[in-house]
Amino acid sequence: MFSEIHMPKGFKCAGISAGIKASGIKDMAFIFSELPAAAAGVFTTNQVCAAPVKVCRAHLQHGVARAIVMNSGIANACTGSAGMVAATDMAAETAKVIGCEPQEIFVCSTGKIGPQLPLEKIIAGIGKLFDVALIENVQDTAEAMMTTDTRPKVAVEELHIEGKSVRIVGFAKGAGMIEPNMATMLSYITTDAAVEQHALQAALKRAVDSSFNRISIDGDQSTNDTVLALANGAAENRPLDESSHDWGVFFQALEKVCFELAMMIVHDGEGADKFVTVNVTGAASAEDAELAARAVANSMLNKTAWAGCYPDWGRIMDAIGYSKARVIEEQVDIFYDDTQAVAGGCLSGVAQEDLIKVVSQTDFAININLHIGDGEAVVYTCNCTEEYVRINF
Amino acid sequence: MFSEIHMPKGFKCAGISAGIKASGIKDMAFIFSELPAAAAGVFTTNQVCAAPVKVCRAHLQHGVARAIVMNSGIANACTGSAGMVAATDMAAETAKVIGCEPQEIFVCSTGKIGPQLPLEKIIAGIGKLFDVALIENVQDTAEAMMTTDTRPKVAVEELHIEGKSVRIVGFAKGAGMIEPNMATMLSYITTDAAVEQHALQAALKRAVDSSFNRISIDGDQSTNDTVLALANGAAENRPLDESSHDWGVFFQALEKVCFELAMMIVHDGEGADKFVTVNVTGAASAEDAELAARAVANSMLNKTAWAGCYPDWGRIMDAIGYSKARVIEEQVDIFYDDTQAVAGGCLSGVAQEDLIKVVSQTDFAININLHIGDGEAVVYTCNCTEEYVRINF
Repeated sequence: MFSEIHMPKGFKCAGISAGIKASGIKDMAFIFSELPAAAAGVFTTNQVCAAPVKVCRAHLQHGVARAIVMNSGIANACTGSAGMVAATDMAAETAKVIGCEPQEIFVCSTGKIGPQLPLEKIIAGIGKLFDVALIENVQDTAEAMMTTDTRPKVAVEELHIEGKSVRIVGFAKGAGMIEPNMATMLSYITTDAAVEQHALQAALKRAVDSSFNRISIDGDQSTNDTVLALANGAAENRPLDESSHDWGVFFQALEKVCFELAMMIVHDGEGADKFVTVNVTGAASAEDAELAARAVANSMLNKTAWAGCYPDWGRIMDAIGYSKARVIEEQVDIFYDDTQAVAGGCLSGVAQEDLIKVVSQTDFAININLHIGDGEAVVYTCNCTEEYVRINF
Repeated sequence: MFSEIHMPKGFKCAGISAGIKASGIKDMAFIFSELPAAAAGVFTTNQVCAAPVKVCRAHLQHGVARAIVMNSGIANACTGSAGMVAATDMAAETAKVIGCEPQEIFVCSTGKIGPQLPLEKIIAGIGKLFDVALIENVQDTAEAMMTTDTRPKVAVEELHIEGKSVRIVGFAKGAGMIEPNMATMLSYITTDAAVEQHALQAALKRAVDSSFNRISIDGDQSTNDTVLALANGAAENRPLDESSHDWGVFFQALEKVCFELAMMIVHDGEGADKFVTVNVTGAASAEDAELAARAVANSMLNKTAWAGCYPDWGRIMDAIGYSKARVIEEQVDIFYDDTQAVAGGCLSGVAQEDLIKVVSQTDFAININLHIGDGEAVVYTCNCTEEYVRINF
């Protein structure tokens, strides 16, 4: 599937089975930069956060990365000081193999919260990964990141900066906006562009806000969510920052990779078979628009109605009403795609069959205009089926 | 089931089929006081609220009630000015039949959001209800309130005030903390005690806070939620207020009726088969304790884990971590009933089988100690099964 994809210049990657999951299933991945890369990161805001997140946050102070090493199967979250030792050792061991400082290694884990990492298997796995990474293997890397995902997730952009050809390759895992069973969204973005670290960090934050932060979660925000970006400069452009001529080109490509990966996560939502875009316009502010959009996207009553092809706009009115956004009931218009369901807070003249037609599609939009101000927001989400409950049993 | 139950002195009640729902299914209820009763009410805080809620709020200014008239099947929410006319007419017509002021009539509707009330059927129903209400019928009244409820909900308390015997009879509908398909929690409390209106209002507010407001909803707060209390004084005690000798006895009985009805709602949760009590202690404040308890109780990952008899305490750690409550990961203890799962933020030495034993029960508690301060809160909730998704299709 991704076997044709090449990494940006100077990057290698690998995915292997280290024996953390059941025999033979890939469970460790490695992304390695031959050159020191500018590093940026965005992490979960959960007060309960995994040991590898704490280690990544500390290492990011250094601002330079040589590698990301990760495991799936066990989250190394709620594991106390033993978990911190394991995450630190995982970085130190990788640094030793590569021959760099431990602060230049970023570590991630995803999987069950609670159990300790099997450190011997991890350390053996690091050696094996480094050997395999001498040949890049995008497919294996993406597969090793998976937990309840049904498919690996990779996005690629090619662009030109000052006439030099640049690549961005991004990886992600996560089984949907309905927060995955295994409780983590992870994404790694690699590029051979040279980018100033502070500019990369600001760009990543912005790109995450308009991509991963726009997909709906059910509030079960993970202890391990991590997005990392590594820019190693192998393309030999002059280091980019916000004042560079080609900054816009670079930022758009970065944002596009993040957006594509985020959409892949929603499309792979646990048990989901519909992709729903919730647009709110006319809110008192952008914040209000977001609050209203999230209330609709996260409502179980809306998610189950969509699953049943049931155009219950009353549940949408209900959700925006209890959201913290300012709502004037009599001014609300709601459309399913272009078909108006609600006019001025009441049923429009639409025929129920026309709404059923829209909500029966596998991809449709709910467009809500609050008619108060200029605030806008969009959230991407999916439906909730019985399969979701079965997966999370 | 409730055919043996008598209303408080001076109250009559009835439930009939007015043809709003499918043929023969009861869909209108009536609670009538022969004497003017002190009235108290607590309503949804949803910005989108049903016409009958608006009418009840206005009528409550008057502070006196003669009757509650309600229909199930259609919520009269998001129905604009036509809906307001219907709710007002419903009150006016009832007042005419009884011979009282329209402000003395409280109206409620529950059911589908959007459609207009069939006013002719409602008006015919009011006449029929008044005839039938000459004999009290608690069973029919409770049944007529039901939507996705699987059983009617009535609670009774008997007490003595200044040597006079007093009764409190409460009705409720609502199919669970997972907000009902038909989107409403309604409850009516009647008593023949004489109670000052301002004291009744304050007491009802307090009783609702420790009962209906302690059951977990999934955020889908209804447009129609209404709790009404009517005290008609037929017991002939001197009117009670907070300074009365027997105030405590009265308040406790009122609170008990509200609590029993609230527990009936959780036990009848849509598709649910487990009752779960979430206790949080040691929080920085009572508000923090409530935020943490609600995060756990409303988490789909927790609800589905309980359905699967899966003691996934990591999902509980995750939920308190993203709640707005202050949490110090290393200090958290979590127990399933008395069995400790988490000690200081990590897995205790407990055997998984022991936790499975607790979570396999149909009724258990999650006890969380944050070890920060003295704040405490409890929330009552239920599990989420595939049946929930089927019901809300």
